[in-house]
Amino acid sequence: MKLYIGNKNYSSWSMRPWVLMRQCGIDFEEVMVRFDSFDAGSAFKTALQGVSPTGKVPVLVDDDGLAVWDTLAIAEFLAERHPEKALWPHDARRRALARAMCAEMHSGFGALRSHCPQSLEARLPEVGARLMAERADVRADLARLIALWEQALALSGGPFLFGAFSIPDAYFAPVAGRILTYGLPVSAPVAAWIERLWAAPGVAAWVADALAEQDFLDFEEPYRSGR
Amino acid sequence: MKLYIGNKNYSSWSMRPWVLMRQCGIDFEEVMVRFDSFDAGSAFKTALQGVSPTGKVPVLVDDDGLAVWDTLAIAEFLAERHPEKALWPHDARRRALARAMCAEMHSGFGALRSHCPQSLEARLPEVGARLMAERADVRADLARLIALWEQALALSGGPFLFGAFSIPDAYFAPVAGRILTYGLPVSAPVAAWIERLWAAPGVAAWVADALAEQDFLDFEEPYRSGR
Ligand SMILES: N[C@@H](CCC(=O)N[C@@H](CS)C(=O)NCC(=O)O)C(=O)O
Ligand SMILES: N[C@@H](CCC(=O)N[C@@H](CS)C(=O)NCC(=O)O)C(=O)O
Repeated sequence: MKLYIGNKNYSSWSMRPWVLMRQCGIDFEEVMVRFDSFDAGSAFKTALQGVSPTGKVPVLVDDDGLAVWDTLAIAEFLAERHPEKALWPHDARRRALARAMCAEMHSGFGALRSHCPQSLEARLPEVGARLMAERADVRADLARLIALWEQALALSGGPFLFGAFSIPDAYFAPVAGRILTYGLPVSAPVAAWIERLWAAPGVAAWVADALAEQDFLDFEEPYRSGR
Repeated sequence: MKLYIGNKNYSSWSMRPWVLMRQCGIDFEEVMVRFDSFDAGSAFKTALQGVSPTGKVPVLVDDDGLAVWDTLAIAEFLAERHPEKALWPHDARRRALARAMCAEMHSGFGALRSHCPQSLEARLPEVGARLMAERADVRADLARLIALWEQALALSGGPFLFGAFSIPDAYFAPVAGRILTYGLPVSAPVAAWIERLWAAPGVAAWVADALAEQDFLDFEEPYRSGR
């Protein structure tokens, strides 16, 4: 299987399936397509022609050439192919909760996502403090995330959201990264989960690659002019 | 099971699981929560307190009180509970495609959704013509939808997207409704699919209820001042 991804420092959607597969021991070949721009004639869009029907990453292409092009569909596809990995929680009710959380993430948290774009290597606590003071929508997104994570951790007892590492941990990893980048305030149980998440080998490997990237993209960096 | 929904004329997200369950013969009790407004103190938000953790509809509450609060998670939950209904396509590769389409719908098509809000009973072809002339983003969303639908119909041979009625038909029903409301141009195979979709009993029942509603909500109607 090939997984097409974008820059590791910036591509929050790519991070999810990569981290999931790496952490859970599912073999794949990584194909990195650098974000030069998202314009029609960009190298990025050109490289994805004939690969990604949306012109976006991530896309998983299996050995028979089947392209699965959306993060949540990739997660479901992997969960079906690898029942032995228990990518979703085993219990049907917890699985329903886990899916609701991921689906909420998939279409939600727009304020946090747009005001705190991913740049894993950046540390911008002063931007975070300003956003928390000025933007009720960012505060509401953060409060909802904390409530979701606390609910899951309380139900499972940890160490990850639903006990063992599963799809929701991968799904929320990019948002956890924003909490670190922007220094957003979270409760103690949530901070401890983020620490465990960052120490998980699959997540740590992605973050290490992101930090090594040395590729500053100004259209992804509203708050910085360089590294 | 109880399904909490909003106004049938307006609530595109509610339409999806309702139509799916009705069309596929899954029993449920409907609880309609009228959209008075989405402000914190509204009757809508008050009625959903303790029911929907996001304060949004749809929410499915099963007989043990488990609340599943997001459309895609509801669809997966129902598919697991009712394997005999084949809510997803049976073939694993087609199922992956179907899931990618639904996940793309879940987070995408923002231009079409915001410029062409759902009002099933409205007929606004002049608005649709203006949008098609003026807005490249709406045109791009429509072109992508047509490509998705044509691909699925060509692969399956119809009558629905993946043969028998399945989750993707329910998932795209609200967008099909916008094509009718705004008179957006589609190809012949797509128009024929929309006609079959509108004739499917589960969809027809929702649309009939929507037309009977007689509830004009001006915050959902940027293009009309009354019925
Ligand atoms: N819903 C999609 C979102 C994918 C997405 O937006 N990817 C970004 C990179 S993180 C992208 O490829 N953007 C290119 C563009 O918007 O043209 C998914 O879950 O895979
Ligand atoms: N991603 C959610 C979206 C649900 C949603 O936005 N529902 C609308 C009605 S169609 C709502 O309840 N809006 C209330 C609000 O935004 O406060 C889902 O799939 O269920």
